[in-house]
Amino acid sequence: MLEIIEKNRCFKGFQEVYSHLSKSNKCNMKFALYTPDTNEKIPILFFLSGITCDEQNFIQKSGFQKFASDKKIALIIPDTSPRGENIKNSEDYKLGKGAGFYLNAITDEWKQHYNMYDYIADELPTIIENNFNFDTNRIGIFGHSMGGGGAIQIALKNEKIFKSISALSPICSLFQSDFSAMAIKEYLNSNSEIISKYDPISLIKNSVVRKDIIKIDVGLNDEYLKDLYISEFEQECIKHDQKIDISKHKGYGHNYYFVQTFIEDHIEFHYKNLRNKI
Amino acid sequence: MLEIIEKNRCFKGFQEVYSHLSKSNKCNMKFALYTPDTNEKIPILFFLSGITCDEQNFIQKSGFQKFASDKKIALIIPDTSPRGENIKNSEDYKLGKGAGFYLNAITDEWKQHYNMYDYIADELPTIIENNFNFDTNRIGIFGHSMGGGGAIQIALKNEKIFKSISALSPICSLFQSDFSAMAIKEYLNSNSEIISKYDPISLIKNSVVRKDIIKIDVGLNDEYLKDLYISEFEQECIKHDQKIDISKHKGYGHNYYFVQTFIEDHIEFHYKNLRNKI
Repeated sequence: MLEIIEKNRCFKGFQEVYSHLSKSNKCNMKFALYTPDTNEKIPILFFLSGITCDEQNFIQKSGFQKFASDKKIALIIPDTSPRGENIKNSEDYKLGKGAGFYLNAITDEWKQHYNMYDYIADELPTIIENNFNFDTNRIGIFGHSMGGGGAIQIALKNEKIFKSISALSPICSLFQSDFSAMAIKEYLNSNSEIISKYDPISLIKNSVVRKDIIKIDVGLNDEYLKDLYISEFEQECIKHDQKIDISKHKGYGHNYYFVQTFIEDHIEFHYKNLRNKI
Repeated sequence: MLEIIEKNRCFKGFQEVYSHLSKSNKCNMKFALYTPDTNEKIPILFFLSGITCDEQNFIQKSGFQKFASDKKIALIIPDTSPRGENIKNSEDYKLGKGAGFYLNAITDEWKQHYNMYDYIADELPTIIENNFNFDTNRIGIFGHSMGGGGAIQIALKNEKIFKSISALSPICSLFQSDFSAMAIKEYLNSNSEIISKYDPISLIKNSVVRKDIIKIDVGLNDEYLKDLYISEFEQECIKHDQKIDISKHKGYGHNYYFVQTFIEDHIEFHYKNLRNKI
């Protein structure tokens, strides 16, 4: 049962926000949805946001709506983690609400609600199929920072669902990044075998690869660059025949000023990839 | 003495924020500045924000940078009111910090710090002249909501400084709008003669008009439409030979989803107006 809680005209379409009871996370979740005006069955892109974000940051700050409106492509922007008073949280912004890390927790403390992997890879595609008229044979996925890494790991394992993949400033290593240190300990009990299944670099090392190209953009003035492990990810992709196109941009940081600068390129990339899929 | 407190690469330019001691408001003020890459002496646009905003809202949510970068036009985005611990405030969001209303207060309680008219019309143009290399013969001004009304009243009285004027969803009546009811009472002691000098409709009635056209956009789904008095302003403009071009857009609200949809048109409008000024 979806409840619409925001609806605003934006370019030639509507920016909406929905609330619903999530079966994966056993709490109410929100997601944002941008739908361009059209009678056609159009493709839809998942955008996964970074740590501290909810469903609002990207829809307010990225300026994507102009390009989604022009290209007639819908976007769904889920929250990054379960929410609500009864949901376990942490003082550390890299854990708990705002830092779900797009994985299924295995520890007793977190496993009841922190199942963002199932939510993105299974529950949301089903919700889209059952409630809207988008072309679910043409779903793409991308994201920023924690969400960039999340988009990559989910896309690597779910090529049949997500037909196109890109990322902005993605966290490519759960094992090594300071951002994910608390998450892999707390959510996954530091279990290497399970971490590997959510870690972009490990997945590529284990030859979990896609046929299509992964597009990545990153700023060279990104204050977190060394914690993203993008070059290491690139090297593994080359070794394991995963096609990859990484653009490194002089002067740009990790923030939404960077995201808004390159968002048009990403919408265009997915538009072209999804145009001829069936 | 300007202190730079933020600097981020955004499109082909930099989005910066400065702090300085304001002589008009006798406190530290912040303004945002977007400067496209160029060696030329380019025009600059003032953008005045609405109630509750500071210098951040517009630079994060409007997506203007793409168009300012393309057109090589700088933008300065001042705060809407004085700030700081020692500055008088109000429980009411329509008064005090976040609601300076671009006027000079006359009451003892407010007059020391609330002098946003002087700040915009005099202090900031001087700061630009003394600290940057923009073409101060080509300054335009626009704004949203309270800032749209502020831009109009300032532009009507300062045609020699501001060579181009537009507004998004402007509050056109200080006398009648619920938004300004507290402000005119508290800042201006309900003095009609003084209110008239800051009230767009009254200025036009008193034949304080410009030679150029005022461009206005507003959404017909704007939840505050009846409090903006745009049609009344239009009628007075027609009566008093002030050229005006009002576009009313079906379905759009008062928010930044509306602003981002039409921001390109406004940048383009000022670009064309300022292109040939000397």
